[in-house]
Amino acid sequence: MVYLDYSATCPVDDKVLDSFIKATKYSANPNSLHKLGVEAKELIDASSKQISDILNVKPSEIIYTSGASEANNLAIKGIEAYKNRGNHIITTEIEHSSIYGPISYLTDNGFDVDFVPVEGGIVDIKKLEAMITDKTILVSIGYVNSETGIEEPINEIGEMLKKYPKVIFHTDMTQAVGKIKVNLNNVHLASFAAHKFFGLKGIGILVKKENINLIPLIHGGKSTTIYRSGTPATQLIVSTAKALRLSIQNMEEDILRITKLNEKIKNSLKDLDGVYINSNEYSIPHILNISTIGVKPETMLHALEMDDIYVSTQSACSTGETSKAVMAITNDKDKAASSIRISISRKTTEEEIDNFIESFIKNHKSLRLQNENN
Amino acid sequence: MVYLDYSATCPVDDKVLDSFIKATKYSANPNSLHKLGVEAKELIDASSKQISDILNVKPSEIIYTSGASEANNLAIKGIEAYKNRGNHIITTEIEHSSIYGPISYLTDNGFDVDFVPVEGGIVDIKKLEAMITDKTILVSIGYVNSETGIEEPINEIGEMLKKYPKVIFHTDMTQAVGKIKVNLNNVHLASFAAHKFFGLKGIGILVKKENINLIPLIHGGKSTTIYRSGTPATQLIVSTAKALRLSIQNMEEDILRITKLNEKIKNSLKDLDGVYINSNEYSIPHILNISTIGVKPETMLHALEMDDIYVSTQSACSTGETSKAVMAITNDKDKAASSIRISISRKTTEEEIDNFIESFIKNHKSLRLQNENN
Repeated sequence: MVYLDYSATCPVDDKVLDSFIKATKYSANPNSLHKLGVEAKELIDASSKQISDILNVKPSEIIYTSGASEANNLAIKGIEAYKNRGNHIITTEIEHSSIYGPISYLTDNGFDVDFVPVEGGIVDIKKLEAMITDKTILVSIGYVNSETGIEEPINEIGEMLKKYPKVIFHTDMTQAVGKIKVNLNNVHLASFAAHKFFGLKGIGILVKKENINLIPLIHGGKSTTIYRSGTPATQLIVSTAKALRLSIQNMEEDILRITKLNEKIKNSLKDLDGVYINSNEYSIPHILNISTIGVKPETMLHALEMDDIYVSTQSACSTGETSKAVMAITNDKDKAASSIRISISRKTTEEEIDNFIESFIKNHKSLRLQNENN
Repeated sequence: MVYLDYSATCPVDDKVLDSFIKATKYSANPNSLHKLGVEAKELIDASSKQISDILNVKPSEIIYTSGASEANNLAIKGIEAYKNRGNHIITTEIEHSSIYGPISYLTDNGFDVDFVPVEGGIVDIKKLEAMITDKTILVSIGYVNSETGIEEPINEIGEMLKKYPKVIFHTDMTQAVGKIKVNLNNVHLASFAAHKFFGLKGIGILVKKENINLIPLIHGGKSTTIYRSGTPATQLIVSTAKALRLSIQNMEEDILRITKLNEKIKNSLKDLDGVYINSNEYSIPHILNISTIGVKPETMLHALEMDDIYVSTQSACSTGETSKAVMAITNDKDKAASSIRISISRKTTEEEIDNFIESFIKNHKSLRLQNENN
């Protein structure tokens, strides 16, 4: 099997699963007053320290959620805490559905949203600045685009936004954490999920800088923070710290190796008839988006699947006909209607990439032929 | 170690952990189009079928959440879908904090709440009916009280509420599921968490009958339901189905055995000076609430802890001075200020109960003596 859909989700790393299993013995409720509860709480605190050290934030700035979707919803809907300041949000048209979902909810409830242009896939910082009004309270821009891998200039955007102290800056860094070094110095809120870097499904984090207030999504009693209630999931939390630690262990080497694998695919496919590489020099090497004009993404996906190779069409969470993210780069409907995403991880081998290339070339030939005959 | 805090949380059952580990191989994103995604989705569907069969509801009525707190918040805040019908909620004063949290949020946003009296711990159905107005859209009453174990007449309440088709009936059944047979025939919404019946922390369920609409807490893309977005946590879901199946396997026998253990404690302690049994004939046998007049709950908890015995003061999620749930039964502040909760499970042995009784009697004597000397 050649799995090249790591950006949809990763299989859990054996060491991460081990840490989850080992934490079974800390099974008491971390909110319990007795010793067993205190021990579970201490284990969570140690995990929060490890995670916050890696992200260069404070332990108290870590809010555990059920995943990136909850973290994004908490960041965006939670911003209603500032509704007396204004009701204007700025985002882009190439975000994940868990950004649009809560923004649509807010616009149904009196908020306005504007979309900053992303020509070539990159946010235009000057245009973003020009869109800020005295009603703007939130800018939400993804760190790395899930379909094209394009890394947005989050640090520079945050730097510019410092001129507007009423504006809170959120970034969905789900496709960045565990793949590249992230810089949260100029960000107020940042979301991610553990399963995107070989952690388990069912846990995510919202980093919330301490000067930011939010209305909780999940109100209730004691937990690790007042911003999110519910019995803390000790085992999931411990395993997330482990997954994050593993992801940074050899990150620079991993990136170099992944870059080579990415280059090998690009070099092998770029001259094929009707094939276009949509990812560009701003894309992280882990995500490679390519189009085969006239071949539907699902058709290519299922053809590769016959050779036990797994890629994706757009993101796993959306089902649109054409890709907005690919349109943003290419401004070409045919490319946006025929794109597939190959996502590579530190576990991907050169042999797997060779198998993929071989299968793609074979399927490209037969599918393009079919296409000509129709 | 004698763990008697199962109502705060249970250690995961080995078989449940095994099912979680075995599901590791279904690691693809259940939303992915390829075969691996489809297989993960099928596994989730099979789990939903098992869970819904046990609860006698439809698979499509199962909404997976991160726990009971999220499920309670989704049920209560989600009711804003009906705000054009009215803005009145009825609940009791003995609910979990994850009921009050979202209700407070709603009352901050234009809703009104009334509390139905719970004399002797039981909801007075006639008084409840008298409180219903043409603005009432939600009644939320817990199935089993977490501190006293009192089972509310949920079926009878639901039967009465059928006369008021505008009223939606929610029950927090976190302390009921996996312990006793639950009847959801007359309920529209019902919440629970897996870790209360030897499942894992980080997953819960909201049962939402198909004719009920809710505004999601977590908006976004594709998932198992439109009411809750986020990558479905395959392993957690599979393990929850396993935990629920195990919990009902010998439920009737388990209840008989737990009843005997409960009786043994009551018979051994009831005649001790200043000791009162707060749980009553309506309490499920799994939860036993007792007070030692003049001895603070924390003091008794830590004294028992010295003998490696773990009980709780109130619920793990609240930190009040006196227990409202005990006040509701006893109408006695001294009892409500000195109550501890012993919670028993199908895994509790008679030897553990004997150890608890011995330690309690010893500590009772020394703590009451200390008390007299102060």
